[in-house]
Amino acid sequence: MAKKVFVTKEKAQAIAAQYPTPFYLYDEAGIRERCQQVKDAFSWNKGFREYFAVKATPNPYIISILKEYGFGCDCSSEAELRMAEAIGATGDLIMFSSNETPPHEFKYCNELGGIINLDDITHIETIKEVIGDKFPETMSCRFNPGGVFTLSNGIMDNPGDAKYGMTEAQLFDAYRQMKEHGVKKFGIHAFLASNTVTNEYYPALAGQLFELVVRIKNELDIEFAFVNLSGGVGIGYKPEDTQNDIAVIGAGVKEQFEKILVPAGMGDVAIYTEMGRYMLAPYGALITKAIHEKHTYKDYIGVDATAANLMRPAIYGAYHHVTVLGKEDAPHDHKYNVVGALCENCDQFAKDRMLPEIEKGDLLFIHDAGAHGFAMGYNYNGRLWSAEILLQADGEAKLIRRAQTINDYYATFDCTEFGDKLIK
Amino acid sequence: MAKKVFVTKEKAQAIAAQYPTPFYLYDEAGIRERCQQVKDAFSWNKGFREYFAVKATPNPYIISILKEYGFGCDCSSEAELRMAEAIGATGDLIMFSSNETPPHEFKYCNELGGIINLDDITHIETIKEVIGDKFPETMSCRFNPGGVFTLSNGIMDNPGDAKYGMTEAQLFDAYRQMKEHGVKKFGIHAFLASNTVTNEYYPALAGQLFELVVRIKNELDIEFAFVNLSGGVGIGYKPEDTQNDIAVIGAGVKEQFEKILVPAGMGDVAIYTEMGRYMLAPYGALITKAIHEKHTYKDYIGVDATAANLMRPAIYGAYHHVTVLGKEDAPHDHKYNVVGALCENCDQFAKDRMLPEIEKGDLLFIHDAGAHGFAMGYNYNGRLWSAEILLQADGEAKLIRRAQTINDYYATFDCTEFGDKLIK
Repeated sequence: MAKKVFVTKEKAQAIAAQYPTPFYLYDEAGIRERCQQVKDAFSWNKGFREYFAVKATPNPYIISILKEYGFGCDCSSEAELRMAEAIGATGDLIMFSSNETPPHEFKYCNELGGIINLDDITHIETIKEVIGDKFPETMSCRFNPGGVFTLSNGIMDNPGDAKYGMTEAQLFDAYRQMKEHGVKKFGIHAFLASNTVTNEYYPALAGQLFELVVRIKNELDIEFAFVNLSGGVGIGYKPEDTQNDIAVIGAGVKEQFEKILVPAGMGDVAIYTEMGRYMLAPYGALITKAIHEKHTYKDYIGVDATAANLMRPAIYGAYHHVTVLGKEDAPHDHKYNVVGALCENCDQFAKDRMLPEIEKGDLLFIHDAGAHGFAMGYNYNGRLWSAEILLQADGEAKLIRRAQTINDYYATFDCTEFGDKLIK
Repeated sequence: MAKKVFVTKEKAQAIAAQYPTPFYLYDEAGIRERCQQVKDAFSWNKGFREYFAVKATPNPYIISILKEYGFGCDCSSEAELRMAEAIGATGDLIMFSSNETPPHEFKYCNELGGIINLDDITHIETIKEVIGDKFPETMSCRFNPGGVFTLSNGIMDNPGDAKYGMTEAQLFDAYRQMKEHGVKKFGIHAFLASNTVTNEYYPALAGQLFELVVRIKNELDIEFAFVNLSGGVGIGYKPEDTQNDIAVIGAGVKEQFEKILVPAGMGDVAIYTEMGRYMLAPYGALITKAIHEKHTYKDYIGVDATAANLMRPAIYGAYHHVTVLGKEDAPHDHKYNVVGALCENCDQFAKDRMLPEIEKGDLLFIHDAGAHGFAMGYNYNGRLWSAEILLQADGEAKLIRRAQTINDYYATFDCTEFGDKLIK
């Protein structure tokens, strides 16, 4: 089966002539289409906002596109907060969902006017220490229901085994304390399963959270501004995989909303989401060139990208579909392992994969790398990060992050006597 | 059971007062002791040389210490070659063992006078293209015997499933071609198993390679300068684990050498090794501070290091022993998960681990991080690389790589209009 690519061989070659492979290529038209779909799916909810998980694709150009649709930034660290600030996404466009948080990061978020989502009840004390007695007007807590979270298709995930969030008892206690500290509007946040591909997940989670906030509201008499469904809406990586339908998901959440929140007089609660993978994974590809062919006990195609550029296949054994550009319709009659140069045998983008015959110089389009791809880059073996390029809606290619050089990799030796020799 | 630490609580606190946690700390005295042990174990072999796998711990100060013992650099990329050059380890102090190699890297290695170890027979053509018809005087080939490699303790590894090296037929062909191109002295290299903890591995591998080079020599009439046993000699990470005894390993290789090579008139062949983990893992620790305590469905200690600093527990589920400095002898009566701040539930340095009671501010010594630790650092979630510090043999602490800043992380946006806002 095939997966559609968003660039032709000719266009990719033209880009590669200017910016050497490997590089990440992002599809502006696709990103905009997805933004609109997500917006439409939740248009029934007045306050709806997607907070894009910056960690998935920390590039200011990409996030700026999302911001045009009113989307904000889900940040988890000082560096991510700085990126939100850089693109002008401050105030309630920031959701700060972190854990084991260094105190100064809470302070920075507060200075930017971002919404702090507390992972643990003890962080109320930390907030007091760094912000003082006057808490922000709006704050949120992260809930962990414990146990095992199941859907009709079987066991989904094990929140009770996860480090995130508060127990229900802590949650009640935290809201009570925050109310005493002057917080006026509250949010709730929960993440129960990662990369789900079922339209059931968000509605099921929403149902749980809606019932909980009704109980909390009734018991503590506090106002809920939002319910944050967090991430977990995934994509299918294989061509034959089911894909989520965000319109169905939005309608499912609406059904729960109307069943639970509206009758409780909470029809003005905003729905927030924090989708990284669903928003962007399909609209980014790693473009890499075949530079070597090797035949030993298997047939290998060596490419100029490595796990340093895309780590998921190496560390998770994750499937990423590969299209050989210009050979979309050629018979897939060669079985290859597509490998990178790391001295790690796991550095293989595809194993025993049926592909068209590959020649040196062919460009490979590695699909669904638009989220948690570049972001997880490392420099093992001294291999470097690639450039990121935006294929604009007008067809032009724009460099939105340059490739690393060895100088960048060795930059932190600048304070040593080897600095001049390593950084040239 | 306990594992010994190489720094006291007081000393670690003093270092932390100058260089904020987390940081990597390396033990110069331990490194020197290990160097001497390895040298002694192979002192029976006149040409013996350890080529330290730069990828394991790419720090010029550390590798310079090893160089004092006559050890060279096993490099796999341009960046690693530059580091070898920076510390003055050129000529035959470089072994260039890479795969899917970009051609210009062969050229650079040749300019430095390093020994090129060919992973694939087709690279002979590449060498011709970039170096010309006159090949270097000494060259090596990497062998992959295929199949499954077993020792008396069971199946060890599956070289036939690995991307590395040439088949035996290719090997004969390659040496023949290289001889025609004027190569005078030859080496052989093979890597059959990773991180073994058995004194049997190197001798078994050596036996295979010795028999093979005798056959090749007889058939092709070429001179072998060295047999490179590559890496694979590991360490036990748990306190109760067996550890390799390099003296026993050296004696085992000697036995094979005297049985096979000496009778074949090849008693002057040098033995080379490429140990990364065995050389350095035990002599590096990640020092991190407990900054948070959380009690939900488990008891969590949050520390200021994350998987961005040490990835092995997160991606391999690897065990790294943890010592709470100053509490070495306290009862280990608390069960903790020791976690970092990444928004990844796998970001846990220890799970359900029995440890002494931990208080905020305690310093944790994460053992055996001296190899494939810092080197595998990434910046996921915008988290930064730590500093590296050498605890010198004289007791002084020396900064040998500074901590990353957010500016470093965002450096490659310098060519964009967001540069000024991200790099401050």
